Amino acid sequence: MTEPVKFKCVAIIGVGLIGSSLACAMRKRGLTDQIIGVDCDEGVLARAKKIGVIDDGETSLEKGVSGADLIVLSTPVGVMSDVCKALSAAADDGALIIDVGSVKGSVAKAAAALPERLHFVPCHPVAGTEQSGPEAGFASLFEDRWCILTPLVRDDEPYKAAVKRAEGLWAGVGAQVEVMDAAHHDLALAVTSHLPHLIAFTLVGAADDVESVAHGEVIKYSAGGFRDFTRIAASDPIMWRDVFLANKDAVLEVLGRFSEELAVMQRAIRWSDGKALEDAFARGRSLRRAIVDAGQEMDAPNFGRDKKER
Amino acid sequence: MTEPVKFKCVAIIGVGLIGSSLACAMRKRGLTDQIIGVDCDEGVLARAKKIGVIDDGETSLEKGVSGADLIVLSTPVGVMSDVCKALSAAADDGALIIDVGSVKGSVAKAAAALPERLHFVPCHPVAGTEQSGPEAGFASLFEDRWCILTPLVRDDEPYKAAVKRAEGLWAGVGAQVEVMDAAHHDLALAVTSHLPHLIAFTLVGAADDVESVAHGEVIKYSAGGFRDFTRIAASDPIMWRDVFLANKDAVLEVLGRFSEELAVMQRAIRWSDGKALEDAFARGRSLRRAIVDAGQEMDAPNFGRDKKER
Ligand SMILES: NC(=O)c1ccc[n+]([C@@H]2O[C@H](COP(=O)([O-])OP(=O)(O)OC[C@H]3O[C@@H](n4cnc5c(N)ncnc54)[C@H](OP(=O)(O)O)[C@@H]3O)[C@@H](O)[C@H]2O)c1
Ligand SMILES: NC(=O)c1ccc[n+]([C@@H]2O[C@H](COP(=O)([O-])OP(=O)(O)OC[C@H]3O[C@@H](n4cnc5c(N)ncnc54)[C@H](OP(=O)(O)O)[C@@H]3O)[C@@H](O)[C@H]2O)c1
Repeated sequence: MTEPVKFKCVAIIGVGLIGSSLACAMRKRGLTDQIIGVDCDEGVLARAKKIGVIDDGETSLEKGVSGADLIVLSTPVGVMSDVCKALSAAADDGALIIDVGSVKGSVAKAAAALPERLHFVPCHPVAGTEQSGPEAGFASLFEDRWCILTPLVRDDEPYKAAVKRAEGLWAGVGAQVEVMDAAHHDLALAVTSHLPHLIAFTLVGAADDVESVAHGEVIKYSAGGFRDFTRIAASDPIMWRDVFLANKDAVLEVLGRFSEELAVMQRAIRWSDGKALEDAFARGRSLRRAIVDAGQEMDAPNFGRDKKER
Repeated sequence: MTEPVKFKCVAIIGVGLIGSSLACAMRKRGLTDQIIGVDCDEGVLARAKKIGVIDDGETSLEKGVSGADLIVLSTPVGVMSDVCKALSAAADDGALIIDVGSVKGSVAKAAAALPERLHFVPCHPVAGTEQSGPEAGFASLFEDRWCILTPLVRDDEPYKAAVKRAEGLWAGVGAQVEVMDAAHHDLALAVTSHLPHLIAFTLVGAADDVESVAHGEVIKYSAGGFRDFTRIAASDPIMWRDVFLANKDAVLEVLGRFSEELAVMQRAIRWSDGKALEDAFARGRSLRRAIVDAGQEMDAPNFGRDKKER
């Protein structure tokens, strides 16, 4: 068991869904004395303060991170390298820095350029919803979900202690922690997250493009299966643009596998090969069973997604 | 407004998810005096009777439909043509026959071969879950969902009255009724239901095929988006095999559109065209908004899929 840890002051850079969920979770579990939000948008900070997600807001990164012993990067992946550069002078000695980005290779590269006095532990909590902004955050988002850590190749004791603190933080907000290297993370998540999102975005686009089927019909008959795709296709366009730009190679690799498999299905339909279709379709049930058994999904009509308290 | 209608005796052929949901809904709304289940499997009939879905069960189709003024075909699409042939002698004069199959062209062809004394109105309630069997049925499944009718080209008065009765039945169980021709139905549903299912089945297969990512990892990190696909990929393999065999042309057509769109996305990723990705991804939010506004989905974390009463 990893010990839960406690921080004096956490600076959340990017007070969106994930940043504010972590803020809420840390507050609820008593893991920090103070929470400062850092965001370019004053309006976002004001809203986040009003609903009690942060204690104070700062548009200046330098001011916002000064005094923080934990700094959380929860912006889209594409700006993390710039934020990292700004932190190299601004962050306090010995500060633990984590990010929550969906891609780890690119973040790890930026993190490795930081001075040794700062301890950046790249993290990815595999949990989320299709919503954005501070209002979307809720304290239980990370409970029973996995958080993957991809520590830098550094074996000095302060860094090793920082990795332990990062593990303790995630365990403290209810997540299960896994450690792996960034390249493996990026391939595994290309399979379980990036490709599914790409496919959902693509399907939604293609559906709206069949001229002889009206837009209104796509909406009316969406309960036939289509609506399940629209949930994840409603995710933030900028966040996802950054994911695909940052994880290009792995995404293209798994996309190649998908296209092969799709060609096989297409052929089975064209040749009316019922046996091949039935066999391929039968895999779905067993995989879903395994996911439900692993507690990563519920078999209830509502998927267990009850309204969450902030 | 269509008037709700009342039947003396309904025979449900195929007491699965859809058949038993219709039985439950008709009973709850007082639309029939008696419900007979017809299924090849005595065990299914016994279970359905025990939980109160049917009044009595019959393994013989001839006996089961005798005396019924409404006959519902709720088997997989592939056996409907055989069931139809059996009905041509067995069904009572003037009986209204409906089906609930996900493809209409093939069913309409079988229906057109029936004698004029029988009135077959092909129907497709666009509502369902990934579960099967009598236990999966619930009375509110059709509420606020669309039911598409594709009547035969017959303009005798008794048939026109039968179409009205079919409309009244679906309105009576809470659905909104739409009438169109079978070919248009098959294309529209290829877009909103058949293609999404094919893609989900394919993705689930492809995910399990990337050797360097372990099966266990696919399950652990499924909360990143993958699990949303596994719900519809857990649907009945036989039902779906039959759908793709019966709606081959329309499915291949929309699959072609999807593949084109996917190639465009792949190219944008390969060339790091962030603008193209962002623009394509932005369509998702607006379409989902429209689906939520149309009442076909809920914006709640649980999708509004609360536990339903039988
Ligand atoms: N959503 C998910 O399901 C999920 C799951 C796991 C990990 N992640 C990762 O979590 C991170 C945040 O995603 P999210 O879903 O929380 O997105 P979000 O709700 O859109 O939040 C992103 C926040 O970052 C802010 N931001 C953008 N550029 C910034 C900059 N240069 N400096 C400071 N703040 C900036 C945004 O501010 P403005 O509103 O003012 O633009 C916004 O408050 C991403 O890296 C994503 O890959 C997301
Ligand atoms: N599931 C959906 O989301 C959905 C939505 C709209 C329409 N539909 C359509 O509804 C129909 C039924 O689907 P479902 O989801 O209700 O499937 P289901 O739960 O598997 O039920 C199908 C039933 O048909 C029975 N059956 C199979 N072959 C038969 C035969 N030759 N004679 C008599 N009964 C037979 C099965 O009996 P055994 O159990 O004994 O094999 C089972 O009880 C399909 O045509 C499907 O396309 C489904």
